[in-house]
Amino acid sequence: MAVYTDVSFEDLESFLAGYNIGVPLTFKGIAEGVENSNYFLSTAKGSFILTLYEKRVKIEDLPFFLGLLEHLAAGGVHCPLPVRNLAGAQLATLGGRPAALFTFLNGVSLRRPEAGHCAAVGAALAKMHEAGKGFALSRENALGHDGWSELVEACLPRADEIEPGLADLIRTAHAEITSNWPSGLPQGVIHADLFPDNVLFMNGAVSGLIDFYFACNDAFVYDLAVMLNAWCFEPDVAFNVTKSKSLIAGYVKQRPLSQEEREALPILTRGSALRFLLTRLYDWLNHDPHALVRPKDPRDYARRLRFHRKVRGVGEYGL
Amino acid sequence: MAVYTDVSFEDLESFLAGYNIGVPLTFKGIAEGVENSNYFLSTAKGSFILTLYEKRVKIEDLPFFLGLLEHLAAGGVHCPLPVRNLAGAQLATLGGRPAALFTFLNGVSLRRPEAGHCAAVGAALAKMHEAGKGFALSRENALGHDGWSELVEACLPRADEIEPGLADLIRTAHAEITSNWPSGLPQGVIHADLFPDNVLFMNGAVSGLIDFYFACNDAFVYDLAVMLNAWCFEPDVAFNVTKSKSLIAGYVKQRPLSQEEREALPILTRGSALRFLLTRLYDWLNHDPHALVRPKDPRDYARRLRFHRKVRGVGEYGL
Repeated sequence: MAVYTDVSFEDLESFLAGYNIGVPLTFKGIAEGVENSNYFLSTAKGSFILTLYEKRVKIEDLPFFLGLLEHLAAGGVHCPLPVRNLAGAQLATLGGRPAALFTFLNGVSLRRPEAGHCAAVGAALAKMHEAGKGFALSRENALGHDGWSELVEACLPRADEIEPGLADLIRTAHAEITSNWPSGLPQGVIHADLFPDNVLFMNGAVSGLIDFYFACNDAFVYDLAVMLNAWCFEPDVAFNVTKSKSLIAGYVKQRPLSQEEREALPILTRGSALRFLLTRLYDWLNHDPHALVRPKDPRDYARRLRFHRKVRGVGEYGL
Repeated sequence: MAVYTDVSFEDLESFLAGYNIGVPLTFKGIAEGVENSNYFLSTAKGSFILTLYEKRVKIEDLPFFLGLLEHLAAGGVHCPLPVRNLAGAQLATLGGRPAALFTFLNGVSLRRPEAGHCAAVGAALAKMHEAGKGFALSRENALGHDGWSELVEACLPRADEIEPGLADLIRTAHAEITSNWPSGLPQGVIHADLFPDNVLFMNGAVSGLIDFYFACNDAFVYDLAVMLNAWCFEPDVAFNVTKSKSLIAGYVKQRPLSQEEREALPILTRGSALRFLLTRLYDWLNHDPHALVRPKDPRDYARRLRFHRKVRGVGEYGL
């Protein structure tokens, strides 16, 4: 959580001359977003987030991300809406970086969501899946199933430094996930990273979904699998089936799951646990001590993966 | 610029139960303040800053800082006002840290202030000096003239690693400043760190002074010397006498300088340049690569110090 590109007020002023949102009253870097620099901005016309895209986001992906947010907002999803400038563009340049301005969403992220929040966010995910239909652009899941082999190779040699037996877990789980990975599941635009950090609540209702920078085209039910990992484990990594049941129930009320999707869930939860285990492990092993972000402990996801490998049927997720 | 203590929404909720400011609509860590963790908070009752004091601020100094802000605000200074909780306290505990809530000030910090801004901030400094009179508590300047010897000793052995000749500059300047340091100058509460970062502007007028965590009792004119260093040099460290003239003129319109204060200015600007040179050098040499803050280059202040050592009279500052 950091601001990587420092924007002076004077540069901001020139940038805002290209928009019809008035003069800044407040401008503060916010500690949000691992990948980008974000600023909170308010003017007489309202509140905004200014995002500067740092090197980890590919410029060629920005039309997908920005177009998607506009498409989803038009479909009723509470997500940041890119503000177009006087030239009609969603993207401009600031501090030598591609930059975009978004409407600001009220609401707060929860650290310890309860079952009721899980139901609400499950429903919000399903609505997002429905609203994403008809979006013209597409983006491959760079961190999807096909991309894991490379991460596995990069992580294996040093995995046991983090926890004895971790290399073996990764090797075995990766092989078993690969040979059982389902195909032909209903696909569309997924968020792919809908952790509690990325959901805003107000009075118990979802007031916003944010941080779509992993969004891509993949199986809808994979998004649900990501959320079971992110929302339904307690801090001690015990699985909370009440939360899982609520999350899935909230989802299926808005978008029913087919038989194939239900049956795929256990392998997809393993896959999603492996995905976050691998990226966290990679970041942990390759952490630049000068970076302004502290890496997350990969072991929490090793424990999730072990849990899912013992699951003997989708009933254990409360479905 | 970082958030050191991560506050969950749930902990925030318990904390706010002790205040009469309503339910949070927005809660975001902000990249501000080198010493503390700061959050932007909004409720139906307004906007606030929540500060968690980290280890570099001494708990025993907090009554001085918080009391001072209340005193200054009552005297008409635009500064953050500590919000008292239901128990009437300015200070509470959150995330295991002492924490305080402040009113939020609109306005933006300038990176490249112009002469008009210097005049406005000079006047704001003088008003703050006047408003500070009558404040019951006092605090020694921990980074004042008496504290420099220790920093000099700590920095000298490795100073030349940063720039050849730096150790010699520090040794000579410190000796000459020490033997010429004035005494008996008018004293009171000073800000001691009024850099452009710590001043908010709206429509060219000062809308707020912030970050009083170096405030202390010392010579008023030393505060002006700090500002000449912080506001009146260009990015290439060329002195801008127009800005200096404006800053001093803005100040003296609100609080005239005595003959002694005028004569003391050249030695105080050297002292203040040495103070920031020493602290930046110390932080540079002792930087923890895991810290979330990047140290500032000390050489900018070595160049200021060299400039002031060549000044032959107060007229060179435009006085």
